[in-house]
This record gives sequence, structure tokens and C-alpha cells, in this order.
Amino acid sequence: MQNQLNKRIVLASRPVGKPSADHFRLEETSIPTPSTGEVLLRTVYLSLDPYMRGRMNDAKSYAAPVELDGVMVGATVCQVIESNNPKFSKGQWVLAYTGWQAYGLSDGNDLMPLGDNPTNPSFALGVMGMPGFTAYMGLLDIGQPKTGDTLVVAAVTGPVGATVGQIGKLKGCYVVGVAGGAEKCRYAVDVLGFDACIDHYSDDFSEQLAKACPKGIDVYFENVGGKVFDAVLPLLNTGARVPVCGLISQYNATELPQGPDRMSMLVGTLLVKRIKMQGFIIFDDYGHRYNEFAKDMSQWLSEGKIQYREQIINGLDKAPEAFMGLLEGKNFGKLAIKVNEAI
Amino acid sequence: MQNQLNKRIVLASRPVGKPSADHFRLEETSIPTPSTGEVLLRTVYLSLDPYMRGRMNDAKSYAAPVELDGVMVGATVCQVIESNNPKFSKGQWVLAYTGWQAYGLSDGNDLMPLGDNPTNPSFALGVMGMPGFTAYMGLLDIGQPKTGDTLVVAAVTGPVGATVGQIGKLKGCYVVGVAGGAEKCRYAVDVLGFDACIDHYSDDFSEQLAKACPKGIDVYFENVGGKVFDAVLPLLNTGARVPVCGLISQYNATELPQGPDRMSMLVGTLLVKRIKMQGFIIFDDYGHRYNEFAKDMSQWLSEGKIQYREQIINGLDKAPEAFMGLLEGKNFGKLAIKVNEAI
Repeated sequence: MQNQLNKRIVLASRPVGKPSADHFRLEETSIPTPSTGEVLLRTVYLSLDPYMRGRMNDAKSYAAPVELDGVMVGATVCQVIESNNPKFSKGQWVLAYTGWQAYGLSDGNDLMPLGDNPTNPSFALGVMGMPGFTAYMGLLDIGQPKTGDTLVVAAVTGPVGATVGQIGKLKGCYVVGVAGGAEKCRYAVDVLGFDACIDHYSDDFSEQLAKACPKGIDVYFENVGGKVFDAVLPLLNTGARVPVCGLISQYNATELPQGPDRMSMLVGTLLVKRIKMQGFIIFDDYGHRYNEFAKDMSQWLSEGKIQYREQIINGLDKAPEAFMGLLEGKNFGKLAIKVNEAI
Repeated sequence: MQNQLNKRIVLASRPVGKPSADHFRLEETSIPTPSTGEVLLRTVYLSLDPYMRGRMNDAKSYAAPVELDGVMVGATVCQVIESNNPKFSKGQWVLAYTGWQAYGLSDGNDLMPLGDNPTNPSFALGVMGMPGFTAYMGLLDIGQPKTGDTLVVAAVTGPVGATVGQIGKLKGCYVVGVAGGAEKCRYAVDVLGFDACIDHYSDDFSEQLAKACPKGIDVYFENVGGKVFDAVLPLLNTGARVPVCGLISQYNATELPQGPDRMSMLVGTLLVKRIKMQGFIIFDDYGHRYNEFAKDMSQWLSEGKIQYREQIINGLDKAPEAFMGLLEGKNFGKLAIKVNEAI
């Protein structure tokens, strides 16, 4: 190890609006040495997720911001390469939270073991991890889908949207996706089995969505906000449920949109249509139910009932660009960075 | 009966914005004759409630609008004065839905018997009826109050707000009311037992509300909207619950407020604070649980745990003016019209 250096990407400055390459800085430092009780982890996969945009701000949110010059946060799939902790041994795979760097330390408390030779270790960042768990709990616990319900979900080639829609199909829903571009829409229908998928770049997007939902919308899984929500709102049925898991279209916004102020209109709609709208943060709200999800999802994957697509990009230095593309919907599948080869 | 006339108030025209006397018309007609299976009802009390404003519009809402020249809708407490229905006998008291008129007909299906000699027949329009039931279910089922929670509710001298706050106290909440004027605020604290009550006419209303809720707000029972909601929103705690039962401050609005558009900001707040906001229409959502409410509320009333105040105005011709005052918060207690003396 002595001859190698750690690479890491830190927050160089806080973006106002869209992040650019200037807001990140690649650094080389020495590989850290684990103290008693600690393990040294070598990152194989780094997850890139929309929530990371919020952590670049200084604002109070549901989690602390990344500090200036601090390593960008993120979930990783790592291998233990040195262990001073009796619970972990060299070569073992773990899900960690070491962020945008090639090597990291942990005292073991935030690690989830993935075994010595997992079939698909990167799945722990997607369909078997936070995004899949988010889709499962948000849809099933808050969305309460029933057979015959119309379910709408956006960002359907991302790991949350794709999983929400496929679970919706397993529960007997009529599933309408929203995606950016014809290729993604075809994928949603042909591969994921959605009943329809509407391209949000179309000029008549809201008309197309209304046409695709002739019985209105019973469950809208909110992960994007913006014009998709605007088109969904008038289509919501009496008794509709709206789990709110993300608002990616708003993450780069620097100010509120121009008026009129539709806030009271939204609350009025919730009232007259008896709608439930509920935000959730997956591990805070549902951490205790992870096993229930893992059991169902493993089975669905092994039975081929859930399809999962990844877009894996090689090299930690590519992370900023890939992340900026994610915020604009450029990814096609769960986005992750291959940081090091497995040992 | 032959010598008497029926009096009724019909919708003369649809208001745009605030209703005025011109939108109502008092008519005299003959008293109707019950057919086979029907009963003739004599109205003793007519309930006046904020939702009636919505029925004066032609817009699709959760219930059909009142027709032009049609009798204004409303719940009534009546006595049966002629019965062609074996289930009902002369002199019996019933809760009916005969609207703004002195006499009405029913086939019996929409009547709830109140006995031959009820102690407080008018309570069926308030604390034991729709408003009390609304308060009970909205607070307990959607609001899920826990001991030590801070509960905020407005319109606290009305039958919903007063009941919400008092049930909150029974459940161990710290209850902060909002009302219009010092007299109503004193009543909320001294008679209803609220921990604090803030006058929304104060210039520094939102600062006062923040000061009265040093631990933030866990449950906000929404029945008014407008500036009260604006002041509540930044104070909502992580995991807060917001049952939405009404938006009286908005019922006369003719257009959306000026921007900026805070709709996405509201949804973003629901997300990062993991808030549940849910509209409900009491009999649609909870009709099957009326007995549960009636049992608890009867007991609380008999034990003196719930205080109930009525403002009863004599004469059907006074209904329009009283109703217009209700929309501006002029009532102090549950507003009802005494239409006829009991027989």
C-alpha cells in the first residue's frame, strides 16, 4: 500500500444553481491507516444519487451538508483490505458510506456485510439498496396500490422509478411512466412492462399524460416535481395517494418560480379530493423494515420479476461529470462509478 | 297546516367572491304533503357551516352544487309532524338534511332518529354531529396526536376548532389555538383549557405563534388556510401530521394569490420534514366509524371534559346575514338558526 495514493473528490465550493466542474476538486493524499477497531476499505463502486445535490448546499435539510473541502458523501461497495476489527476480515465485501474516494476507514458500525463473494455486489447500491428500498416502502406503505389502480411514476429508467413501476405491475396496477426521450420510454414499456410511458420532452406532454390515464391517477410516486407534478395534479382521483421521495427537477433551483401562488390551490385539491401526500426519508422512516424489503426483492429478482439496469462508469475522476448529467436526466439506469477493480 | 305557509331560502344567483344578500331569496310556498313512505318535517334548528359556500359555486367539488332557485342545502334538527312511514312517528326528533326551509319532506333514508325528548337536540348539528365527528376523526386518525406533541388549531371558538383542541388536551398535547380577537382567545384558554391562543389580527401574529410553539408544531389541524397556514408551515416539525378539513379563508377567493409560486416549496417541505398532509371529507372517509365517535363524545360531554358553545339566532330570514358573518369569523360558537319552536 505504501506506494499507492488515495484519490478523493472534495467539495471545492458551493454551487448556486447548477453545479459545474469548478465545484469539485480531485485530490491525492496518502492512504489512511486503520486504528484499533477500524478497517481500511477499498472502494469498488461509488453510488451517484440525486440527494447528493442537497448536501452541496449549506442549508439545513434532513442531513448535514458536506463541509467545504470535505469529501463528497456517498454510499459505496467496498472490500476490506486491512482489518483491526474482529467482525471483519480481509477480502470481505461491505456496503459502506465512505463517499467519493478510493480508500476509506470505518469503525464497522456503518457497514453492512455483503459476503465474501457476492454475485452482484453493485446491486447493494441500487435495486437491493437505498433506491430499491425507497421504491418498495414509498409505493407499498404510503402509496397503498390496489389492483386496477392507475399508478404514475417518473424517471423510470432510474433505479427508483423503474422499481416503483415494476412493483406496481406485480400488485396489479395500470402503470404509466414518464421519461425523457423515446428510447427510455420504449425501454419502460418493452423491458420493464409498463402499460405506457410518456416523453416529458413532448410539447403536448400533459395532454398525452391525460390520454394515457383515462381513469385518472390513484397513486403518483413523486420523485421529480416540476412540470410532471403540474400535469399530474389535475388528474389525481378522489382518495389518491402521493408518496414524496424526491424533487430532482427542483434541486438546482435558486428561487421560487414566478406566480401565481398555487400553494393554496394544492391544499384545496388535497381537501376536496381527500388526497394523502406524504414525504419520507427511507432509512429514517423505514430502517426497521429493511429485512422485509430484502426478502421480497431478492425473491423477485431471482424469479426474474424485476428487471434492473445499471450504468457503470470507470474512474473516480469521472464522478463529477456523471453526477451533473444525473441531475439533468442523462443517465440510463442506476448510475455508479467503478473506482477500483475488485481484489 | 292548511293555513300556514312554508318559508324557504333559495340560491338566487351565484356569488363571485363574497356572497351578499342579493344571492339569496326568501320565498313562501305551500307546505308540502308527504306521499306514501314519506314524513313531513318541521325544522327547529338549521345548521350554518362554512362548506355551504362551496355549494353556491357551479364548480365540481366533492358534492353537487345547489341549483339556481334551489333551496340552500344544510343539516337540520326537525320534528316529525306527519308520518306515512312506519319507522317514524309524530313528535319524534330527527337529524335531517332538509336545508334552509321551515318544512321539508323525507323518505326516511337520510334521517337519524334523536329520540322523543332529547336533552340537547341542537347538539346533533355540532359537537355530537358533523363538526364534532370531523374534529374527532381528523385529529385522532390522521393527526395521530401523542402525549407532549404541540397541536395547533385555528377557528377555536367554532365547533370544529374548539373540539379539536379539547380532544388534544385529553390526549396530552400542548395545545395552541388561533382565533380572531382577544375575547375569543381568552375563551380558548380560560374555558376550553388551551395552553395558549394567538390573535390572528395581531400585526406580529406569526412571531407570536412561533413564540407560543417553542418546540415547533407536531400536528396542525388545517381548517382555515391563508395566513395561518403561512405562519404554521415553517414551524412544522419533522414527522408532522396535517389533517386538512377546511380552508375557510379561501372560500371567497376569486383568483390565486400573487406569486412567487410556493407550491414546490410546500412539497419540498413535506419531503425534507417527512410530513403527512391529508384531506378528508368526514362522512365519505369515516361514516362507518360514527358510533365510535358518538360513544366517546357522549361520555366526554357527560363528564364535563368537553365544553360546547352555541350561537343560536332566531328566524330563518336571518340565515343569509348570519352565514355571511360566519365566513368572516363573526360567530362565537357553533352557529345555528332557530327556525320554528318545538311542538
